[in-house]
Order: sequence, then structure tokens, then C-alpha cells
Amino acid sequence: MKLEWTVYELTLKHPFTIARGSSASRRVVVVRLEQDGIVGLGEAAPIARYGESVETVEQFLRNLNLNAIQDPFALESILWALDLSVPGNAAAKTAIDLALHDWIGKKVGLPLWKLWGLEPGRALATSFTIGIDRPDVIEQKVHEAEAFPILKIKLGGENDREIMAAVRRATKKPLRVDANEGWKDRQLAVERITWLEQEGVEFIEQPMPAADLAGTAWVRERVNIPLIADENSLRLTDVPKLMGAFDGINIKLMKCTGLREAMRMVNTARACGMKVMIGCMIETSIGITAGAHLTPLLDYVDLDGSMLTTNDPYEGVKFDGGTILLPTEPGLGVRLRG
Amino acid sequence: MKLEWTVYELTLKHPFTIARGSSASRRVVVVRLEQDGIVGLGEAAPIARYGESVETVEQFLRNLNLNAIQDPFALESILWALDLSVPGNAAAKTAIDLALHDWIGKKVGLPLWKLWGLEPGRALATSFTIGIDRPDVIEQKVHEAEAFPILKIKLGGENDREIMAAVRRATKKPLRVDANEGWKDRQLAVERITWLEQEGVEFIEQPMPAADLAGTAWVRERVNIPLIADENSLRLTDVPKLMGAFDGINIKLMKCTGLREAMRMVNTARACGMKVMIGCMIETSIGITAGAHLTPLLDYVDLDGSMLTTNDPYEGVKFDGGTILLPTEPGLGVRLRG
Repeated sequence: MKLEWTVYELTLKHPFTIARGSSASRRVVVVRLEQDGIVGLGEAAPIARYGESVETVEQFLRNLNLNAIQDPFALESILWALDLSVPGNAAAKTAIDLALHDWIGKKVGLPLWKLWGLEPGRALATSFTIGIDRPDVIEQKVHEAEAFPILKIKLGGENDREIMAAVRRATKKPLRVDANEGWKDRQLAVERITWLEQEGVEFIEQPMPAADLAGTAWVRERVNIPLIADENSLRLTDVPKLMGAFDGINIKLMKCTGLREAMRMVNTARACGMKVMIGCMIETSIGITAGAHLTPLLDYVDLDGSMLTTNDPYEGVKFDGGTILLPTEPGLGVRLRG
Repeated sequence: MKLEWTVYELTLKHPFTIARGSSASRRVVVVRLEQDGIVGLGEAAPIARYGESVETVEQFLRNLNLNAIQDPFALESILWALDLSVPGNAAAKTAIDLALHDWIGKKVGLPLWKLWGLEPGRALATSFTIGIDRPDVIEQKVHEAEAFPILKIKLGGENDREIMAAVRRATKKPLRVDANEGWKDRQLAVERITWLEQEGVEFIEQPMPAADLAGTAWVRERVNIPLIADENSLRLTDVPKLMGAFDGINIKLMKCTGLREAMRMVNTARACGMKVMIGCMIETSIGITAGAHLTPLLDYVDLDGSMLTTNDPYEGVKFDGGTILLPTEPGLGVRLRG
């Protein structure tokens, strides 16, 4: 196979703040794997928390042994070898996983959802994320998100009550809350969640630090709405360990190395009786559309990453009032915005 | 889709005895699902222990709503609806699952292993099963199984020591033991397994009754070779519950409703750090070949069911000294023996 890649700088509509920090733009790497005249598109949106950057992704791609991808259909052995070749580098691995899936779908002439035995009929809606900000900006963001029936609010800091008050001044919509490990104390977490239940919040994502699974289990015994793991649910083998502490998992392609591992995580979460959500990073429509192909299997969707940018170079999945419209073209079904 | 089926009576080379009983032939139902001039083949090998018979399979097929299978690609929703439509009937459901997978593979023009991203290169060997019998017949069976590098011995009764002595008179091959829930007492199970470790047995399948999972966990603490769940590992949601009691699972298509659920079970077992084996019933080469397509993902294979019969009407996967040779034709790659 022939490999090329391009670095894109995605400009954010609003500087994006969560419990850990803030940024005005994000860089991603788009890869193109070509064989038999077919190009498979993939994307790496590297996450600093997990030691990745555009530079580490490019280093990973430069070191890639393309002879190991003689037959792009052989996903199992290609992706295992890739995963074992270096630790970490989940987003870089995801770029290759996505490009191979896109290539196979195009080669076979089927959209990914069809290749997986799924149907696009189930009208799940994506939530739209409101990052941490000043109350007046929060209100403005909520108004801008009018088209979306469900909002996801980033909390986990000192100003949780201020933020929620601003949101509730602007809307009565169903809300989901992502604390991004922000509540370090289990008693504080129980207090915040009990309050948020009364505010009509549907579930809480990652209330406590990933390292404090016992604390999360303690919290779960004392609250009524579901707790969804994010920072605790990176890879496949994390999933069974979360039984008892969480009610569901949030899968992010850029953390789990791609679609094949994501599918394994969905299957395992179901075996464990857990809900499944898909999330995203700031990504182009390549990564977002890849995740969207899984949504017929899922309970909750948070695929707003490309909509938070002003200059997504690609287009694929569409959102109609938040409702996901999956592409019907072969593979991922994405193309350069033209 | 158009549905037809045929009942076959498979004659056994030797009357087959396990801890629960004995039989000289077995009846199976072969189904043909047709659409767009493509025929998908499937098979139900009903298991009396789980309330199925050729009669219940035929009743299931007569009641089948074929309008629910407008688009054979939509495996997820078709198979969910089928599974929810009536409880049990796992083998009957498997027949439809297999026929749909065969149809899709033929429609797309890919063998199932390729559609799943697998490679047939890994040279796993199937074991060959020696049923419970008189010592002289056991010796004869072991000699007849000369081509197979691994034997699976059925134990779990009063004559375990006699049987093992007969096997060991005839061969020094690696052995696996299936107790089929035969050791009702945990202390007895520990004694037998400790003895079998010394006899060079690789693992023990289902030592204790499925209802006594706590007993199995107790036994596992006191033995060194792996315990593999069979009667305890019927469906997807069973798998996470086995952590701590078993080291692996034996997947049987006829118990788990087919290939799609089997794949979910493989993924879940891996997430739980468990080994995975595939087993079978007395089946034609349709069911056996379907199971064989999963083997590139597995640790242990026991797919001798069609070889225990004298009149398999189909051919598909081949075994070269036990080593699996997967078909390269689209779909399951099985056809009427010509």
C-alpha cells in the first residue's frame, strides 16, 4: 500500500475549555492508504493526556512497515501487529484502522454499517457539547445549539452551579453532564450528582478520577442516574473491570485504536449489561463519520467534534436536528468538502 | 426470501456415549434461504438437553416470518428480532444465522473469514473426540484416530481410570478431557483433575455441574491446568460471570444461536482475559465449516462432529492431519458432496 498524510489545523468556533484546560485550535493528521486504485481515508486526532501529538503521529507513520499490509482485508493480524509494535499511540493506530476499514468498504462496494450487518434506520440523535466558560458565553452557546435536542455540559470545576444556572436560564432541554474526572472527592461527587439529578440530567460521565474506581463504585451506590466511564474506558480489557462502578462506557476511537477494537468493546459492554455511548475529540468528518457507523448499535451519541470547528475539510455523516444521517456510499462515505 | 429445509439422519461411526447418555444416529435440519438467485445454507443440530428436537426446529421454521428478512444484510436487527420472538430454540436460530452469513458472503463474493478480517494461515489443529466406551473399544477408537495429533477424551463417570488407562495404552498424544458436568462433588473433581494433570492432560472441560459455579471456582483454586466452560457458557451474557471460575470458554454455535453471537462471545472472552475454544455437536459440514471460519481467532478447536458420521451430505472445511484448511469459496464455502 502507498501511504500519504496531511496535517490540518482545525479552528474552534469557541475556545474549548474542560476541567483540564483550554484551546483555540486543534491539529489532526489525515492519512490516505492507497492500493488497487482505491484510497482509504483515516484520521488521527492526538490527545495530549495520553502522550500523543501531531509529531508523535507523524513519527509513527514514518516508522510504519507498509509491507505488513500486503492484504488490507487481513484486519485482525495487521491491527494486532500494529498494536504490539509500539505501546500507546492510540490515535495514530486509529488512523490506520479507519483507512483500512474505508478501503475494504470501498473495495467491496458497501458502506461500513452494511458490512457490519447494521441498519441506519434507528434515529439516534447526537448531543452537542457546551464547554466550560463564563455564564454569558454559556448562555450564548446554548442558544447557538438550538438545533440540537440534547446538550452535554462540561462540569467538574469550582463553577458547576454557575454554569448549570446559565444553561437552565437558556434551555429546558435534556442534559448530560461530563465531569472529566473533576470531582476528586467521593462525597463531593455524590452531592453534585444528587443535585444534577434534580436539574434533569440524564447521566454523568466520568465523575471521579480514573485512578479512583473504588470511589466511583461508592458513589454509584448513592446516586440514581447512570455513570458512564470515559477516562476509565480506554481499551477492551478495561470494560469488564468497570462492572459495579459504572453503568456504561463511552467509546472514543482515538483512545481505543479504532473501529475494530470499538466493536469488541461494544460486544463486551453488552455482555456485561452496560450501556454504550460513543464520543469523539475535535476531529474532521473522517473520524466523526467513522464513529457514526457504529451508532445503530449504541444508546448514546456524542459526535459533535467536527461541528465545533469552522474549517472541517471533509464531509460525511450529516446531522438533521442532531439526528444522524449515515452515508450510503461505500466505506466510510467521506469526501473532501467541495 | 424463500425458505426450504431437509431433515438428514446422520449415522455415527460408533454409538456416541458421554456422561449423560448414548446414541447411534443424530438428526439435523439443513435450511436453504434463497434471494436474488443466491442460496444461503444453514443447519440446526438440535440438543435434547436444551429442549430442542428436529420437531421443534421444524415448528420454528414453519412459524418464521420471512417478511422480517427483507434485506439479508441487516443481520443485527433480523437476528435480534428472531432471538426475541421465542425463547430457547438456539439451534433453530443458528440455522438462520448461518444461512444469512452464507448468503451475504456469496453476495459480496468473499469467504466468511475474509469478510471478518481474518486469515486462514494459522495452522490450528482440531482435536478428535473419543466417547465413553468399553476399554477395548476405546483402544480401537484411539488407533482409528491416528491422523489426529490431539484427542479429547470424554470422562465424568465411574470408569474414568479404566478409560484413561485404555487411552494411554494406545497413545502418548496430548489429551484434553471433557467431563460434561460428570463430577458432582468438588473434592472428587480436584482429585480427578490432579490425577489427569499427571496424565499429561492439557485442560479440563466443564468438570462440575453448570449450576455449581461456586464449586467450580473452588476447584480452580486447587488445580493447575485450565478449566474451560461448556455447559456454563451458552450465551453472551454468561461469559463475564465465568471470570474466576473458568480460564476459558467453549463456544458451540448450536447453543449460542450462531456466528454473530459467537463473535460477540469471542470478543468478550478476550476482554475478560479468557481462552476461547470452539466445539460442535454431531453436525454436517455446514455447521462444522461455519465454526471453522472463526478458528483464526481461537486457542483450541474441537470440530470433529462431521467426521464422527458415515454419511455427511455436505463438504466444506478439510482437515489435514487435524489441521484446518478453510474454504476459499464465498460464504461458508460448503456444497453437496458430489
